[in-house]
This record gives sequence, structure tokens and C-alpha cells, in this order.
Amino acid sequence: MVKLTISWKEYGRRLERVRSFMAEKGMDAMLVTNGVNIFYLSHFHHSVTERPAALVVPAEGDLTFLGPLLEVDHLKHQTPLVPRVYTYLDYPGETHPINLFAKWLTEMGYGKAKLGADNPAGAAGGMGYYGPPLSEKMPDTTFESLGRFFWDMRLIKSEEEIALIRESGKWGNLAHMYLQEYTAPGLWDAEVSLMASLEATSVMKKALGPEYETTKGSRAASAGFRGQVGWKSAMPHCHSIDRVIQKGDVLVTGAGSDVGGYGSELERTMIVGEPTDKQKKYFEVMVKAQDASIEALKPGNTCADVDRASRKVFIDAGYDSLMRHHTGHGIGLQGHEPPFLDLGNPLELKTGMVVSIEPGIYELGYAGFRHSDTAVVTEDGYEMITYYPRDIDSLTIL
Amino acid sequence: MVKLTISWKEYGRRLERVRSFMAEKGMDAMLVTNGVNIFYLSHFHHSVTERPAALVVPAEGDLTFLGPLLEVDHLKHQTPLVPRVYTYLDYPGETHPINLFAKWLTEMGYGKAKLGADNPAGAAGGMGYYGPPLSEKMPDTTFESLGRFFWDMRLIKSEEEIALIRESGKWGNLAHMYLQEYTAPGLWDAEVSLMASLEATSVMKKALGPEYETTKGSRAASAGFRGQVGWKSAMPHCHSIDRVIQKGDVLVTGAGSDVGGYGSELERTMIVGEPTDKQKKYFEVMVKAQDASIEALKPGNTCADVDRASRKVFIDAGYDSLMRHHTGHGIGLQGHEPPFLDLGNPLELKTGMVVSIEPGIYELGYAGFRHSDTAVVTEDGYEMITYYPRDIDSLTIL
Repeated sequence: MVKLTISWKEYGRRLERVRSFMAEKGMDAMLVTNGVNIFYLSHFHHSVTERPAALVVPAEGDLTFLGPLLEVDHLKHQTPLVPRVYTYLDYPGETHPINLFAKWLTEMGYGKAKLGADNPAGAAGGMGYYGPPLSEKMPDTTFESLGRFFWDMRLIKSEEEIALIRESGKWGNLAHMYLQEYTAPGLWDAEVSLMASLEATSVMKKALGPEYETTKGSRAASAGFRGQVGWKSAMPHCHSIDRVIQKGDVLVTGAGSDVGGYGSELERTMIVGEPTDKQKKYFEVMVKAQDASIEALKPGNTCADVDRASRKVFIDAGYDSLMRHHTGHGIGLQGHEPPFLDLGNPLELKTGMVVSIEPGIYELGYAGFRHSDTAVVTEDGYEMITYYPRDIDSLTIL
Repeated sequence: MVKLTISWKEYGRRLERVRSFMAEKGMDAMLVTNGVNIFYLSHFHHSVTERPAALVVPAEGDLTFLGPLLEVDHLKHQTPLVPRVYTYLDYPGETHPINLFAKWLTEMGYGKAKLGADNPAGAAGGMGYYGPPLSEKMPDTTFESLGRFFWDMRLIKSEEEIALIRESGKWGNLAHMYLQEYTAPGLWDAEVSLMASLEATSVMKKALGPEYETTKGSRAASAGFRGQVGWKSAMPHCHSIDRVIQKGDVLVTGAGSDVGGYGSELERTMIVGEPTDKQKKYFEVMVKAQDASIEALKPGNTCADVDRASRKVFIDAGYDSLMRHHTGHGIGLQGHEPPFLDLGNPLELKTGMVVSIEPGIYELGYAGFRHSDTAVVTEDGYEMITYYPRDIDSLTIL
């Protein structure tokens, strides 16, 4: 059967690593408020809202959840790894949740302990949350920052994680196929995006069977343009365009899917109608730059080396002024995560790092050109996770 | 013509209020890193990623953006309100962006100034961002927390804001109509959700014309279930269900739309097939509880009063143990924001507050029952923003 989630055994290994870090730092427990890291340790994913929630990892013994009543049934359904719960009705409550957190942690014996904490506020915040820092409510407890610990721990993906990212790549590919099939002049980008996402999500749910559940809302697989249509393709992250797709447009797409919380990234430059010479030229240089960065993906090279490889292609072509961002970023539980493939990042590539490779060029008022592929660093170099065609003929919509 | 965005004049009024707060507190400038508040002040919305970005509001003179090159063309396209820009190529960069922020702010004359800051880190963080706090890089500058300032400022909605929320309610209603039309046994919740969102988004884009642009991705209008299907309807925020919709299911829905960055909330309990007596009973008590809270919505009453009104109905019916959350929350630029309609919130209701009213009951293993409506507090009491039928007959799918 297709593996759709991380095994309980792997969660056990993660916990061991956390505990050996805690032992090294002399921490009596760890307090995690970041929703992604709570999922990473416990298989419990939840909507992070104004309601404070935290996972307590003691040096020994059961994981404990501190959080709103709303999430408790949900937690118990999702995971056997967090048997202990302290809960409050809602935020702000007759007693502020942070005061309860302080009381519960003291009851648990941490009133004078050393706690590793990803956030001394004791709450992820956002959506109107307001409260005193937990550290202020527990003056005899030492709060020690976790620094980059979780980012570093998540940097190298395990075989299980890579398998989920591969599975994600497959369904992102399907979503992108539908996106390309549905793209036509006269349609809104949002219409094409939702048609493709509907079709791919439906197939994905049917193909993977009932065991498959999305952790990120209703789009199991999705594809779209994020506004990068026509002259707006020159603006990455522009979200929206005020007109329908037209003949002559350059489109920059994006597709992916959620498998056990993990994702992949697939982006393509598509051209509606016969490409012009200028479009062909930009397209060709962009693919060459992507090739150069892909070839630089190997253990021993640095993240900066990968960025430098595509930049060199752009600079040699005289396109210095058209660059708007670096070559790529890590991907896994989050759409962006370390390592960043950036000139300023001396970090060495290691087997098991998963990254997007997406050098782009953007001419304001005209168009943008960027493919993005997901790759994993292997002992010998790299393995491509995404495999959608990259050549201009395959990506021209006639 | 339909108003689809906040007027430049209103942005001017917001800036005046910010500046009078700054004057009161003796701040030389304000540094805003929260993406929603940057939009609130400048009409610039962007994807908050690992790349630090901040808006500088000086006591006098032009607003200034500090941020990644990726966003600069986009910013200039979206708003005339931020004429000055300092930019860096990407994160982490050859010089860390926080060092650049410190340098630029010093160049702007804030090296020994008093800065109001929503985040002394100088960056919103997330997605792998890591860096020293800005306050450490500017040791002679005083950083003063903004506390609840923006939450308080956004608490009372203006006429313009309410008009956008009303417009949002209309398209949420359409999306929900489609959701109900498409709901049928044998379909995945995600399929129904994406069909309804596609249909409603398509109509919305065509009806509102080219001036309409979404600020939140490709779903202009959307509706769905977030996993609350059948026995899982008893788990709010559960995201996903491992089976298709079946006869006998209770469904808890959600619908909304984005108009100029503002949203509304519409949720309904629907029943697939002839309701049982137990379903009818729960449904009836839930509607009665919602009525009670709606009636309590008026200036002078507190947020706690509104929560107490629906709780009383549940407690009188013997359903104490079925409650999982409070009655509602504010809504506007974010899906959840203050004020929270919670027992522990003594805040008085004031004309212009916009809230969801959504008391619910949940029997684990059986089903959940919750409607949510959006209402604005008026001088006389309230005005309903959402208006989808609430009675069981209208919400039964036969």
C-alpha cells in the first residue's frame, strides 16, 4: 500500500533526537508552540488561531498538550502520541490561558526548571491574541531559546519524508497537466486554477483511497497562476490579475499537493499562442540557468554555489537587471524552509536536502520567466522529484 | 459603481490616527512588520515569507518600505502611498537583511530615536527565517512595543469597511447556495467544495468586473466543510474526512469571499436525508442559542453577555458538556480578530464592531451543530450581514 503518512517509528526517532538535544542542553522539558513543529513531533495538525496551544516534551514520559477544548477530541482522534491533556474552554477565558499554562507547567514540576521554548510568549500569537509572556508568569523557570534547532533538524529529510514528497510530486504533476489542458484565452486565471484543482483533487482522493487525508484544507492537489498572467507574470507573488487570459500571454504557474503534510513545488512558464522571438530568447536563457543550478546540486557544493550557477547564466546573457530573487529554497512540511539557495548562504549541501530550483527573470511591463522543480540531493548529485516537461514546445498553448 | 476597495481618503484618516498615537507616545517613527497591518496602512498586500519586510511610518513625510526586491515592482503597482523603498536582493543575502534594516533606519535618522515597533525582531519570521533582533543591531534606538494598538484601531469598523464586508457576505451567500446544490451522497467534501468555489468565483469575477481583484489567492468566493462531515462534524477545525458524504450525515459548512481584503463568515448545519428526532432536537436548541446571542448584540452589552446568552440556552437544555468553544469573534481583514465573544471578555460592544455569532454543540462520535452568521453592531442593536436560511427545512438535502 502507498505510504501516506510518517510511521510511528519515525516519530519515535524524532522524539529521541529532541531528547538527546534536551539532555545536552540540560533542559527539563521543551515547550513547542509552532503548529508545524507540533505536527512534526506528534502527528497532530491543527489550525493555529488566537487560542494558545503548546506541546510539552518532558525529558522522560508522556507528551502533553496544553490547549483549547476545541482541539482535544481532534487531537485524541489523530494521534496516540499525546496521551496527556490540559485544556481550557476558550480564549481569552475567565482566566487567561497563559496563566493556566503557568499553573499547569508548575503542577507538572517545572516551576523552577529549565525549559527549552520556541517562543517565550508561550503562544504562537496572531488573529487577535494578546497576553503577557509566559516567562513573566513563571519567574523562577529558566526559558532557553531553541534557536534554529527545529529548522536544523528538519533540514535533512529521511527516506520516509522523501517518499511522501515524491508522492506529492506525482499529484502536483497531474494538477499541472489539467491546468495546462484547461488554460485558454477568455478564462479567468482563477477559473482555470479551480477547475484543475477540482479535477486533480477528485482523482487523487479516488486513487489513494480512504486512508488519504489532507492536512491543509480542501485542495488535496492544486495548480494555479497566483496572478502571474501576461504583463503581471513579471511580478512574482502578485496574487491577482484584473483581466482574463489572452493570446500572447506569458503565464507563470504553480502546482503541488499535500501528502501526509509534505509538499513539492512545480512551476512552469507557459506561452499562449506562438512564442515570439523575444519570448523564446528569455525562455531559453531561463531553462539554461535552471539546468546550471540543477547540475550544481551535489554534496560538497554550497547553497551559494547553486545560486551562483544560475546567476552566471543570467549575467552572461546580460540579464543582471532582470533578476528578482535567488535560486530556490528548501521544501517539506512548509512551502519555504531552509536551506535557501542564496549567494549569502555558505551551507554545504548534504544528502537528503530537498530544494526548489527556480531561477527567474522578469521584465517589468512585459513578462516573467521561471520554472521551478523540486529535487533531492543524493550521494551522487541529485534526484528530480518533479518531472513535468520543461521545453517551450511542450509548454506552448495553441 | 460597487466599491471594491478602501478609498485613499480613508487610508489618509488611518495614517492620521497612527500619527496622533505616535505623537502621544513620543515616537519618532513606527515600524510595522505584520503583513495585515502593512496592508491596513498602505494598501500593499504581500505574501509574508522568510524575507523580512517592514513599513516605516515617520512622524512626518513619506511612508517607506524596507523589503525584498521581489516585492518592489508589486508594491509600486499596488499603491501610491509608499513612495520610498530600500530593498535587498534576497534572504539571507550576503549581508543579512536585519543588518541592512539597521543601516537604512540609521540613515533615515533613527539611530538614536524612539521607534514604535510591532516586533522588536524587525521581521515577521516564519518559513525558515532566522536572525538577530533588530533592536540588538540598533543599541541606541529605543524600541517601544505597540501593544494592542492595531487590534484596538481595527476593532470598530468604518462605513467603508462595513460596506466591503456586506459585499463579501453576498458572494459568500452565493458560494453557499452552490455548495448546498452540489452536496450529494457519494461525493467527497473536497469535490463539492471546489465545485462551489469554482462556480461562485467565476460568477463573482464576471459580475464585479475587471476592477475586482482578490487579495488572498485564487478563490474569490469559497465554500466548504473543513472535514466536518458525518461523525466528524463533531470536531471543529478537523480539516479532513476519510470517506465520502453519506445519507444521514450532519454537515457543518463554511463560506465566504474576499472583497478588498475583507471577509465575512457564513456557516450552516445541513442534514443529508430526513432528519432524525435527535438531529432535530440538537438543531433546534442550536438555533435558539444563536437567536439568544444575536438578540444580546447591542451597544452597552458586553462581549461576555453575548456569550452568556447562548450558553444559557445550552445549559438549560442540559447540553453543558457538548460545548467546545465560545460564541464568536471579530472579523474583518482577518478571519478571526478581536473582539472575542467570550465569558471572560468584559469589553463593551460598540457601534461598528463586526462579529461572528456561532454557538455550537458537539457530541463526540455522533455529530456537531453550528451555524455562524456575521453581524455588525449598530446604534439600535445589530444588522445581519449574512442572510442564508437558518431553518432545518431549508438546510435538509433530500
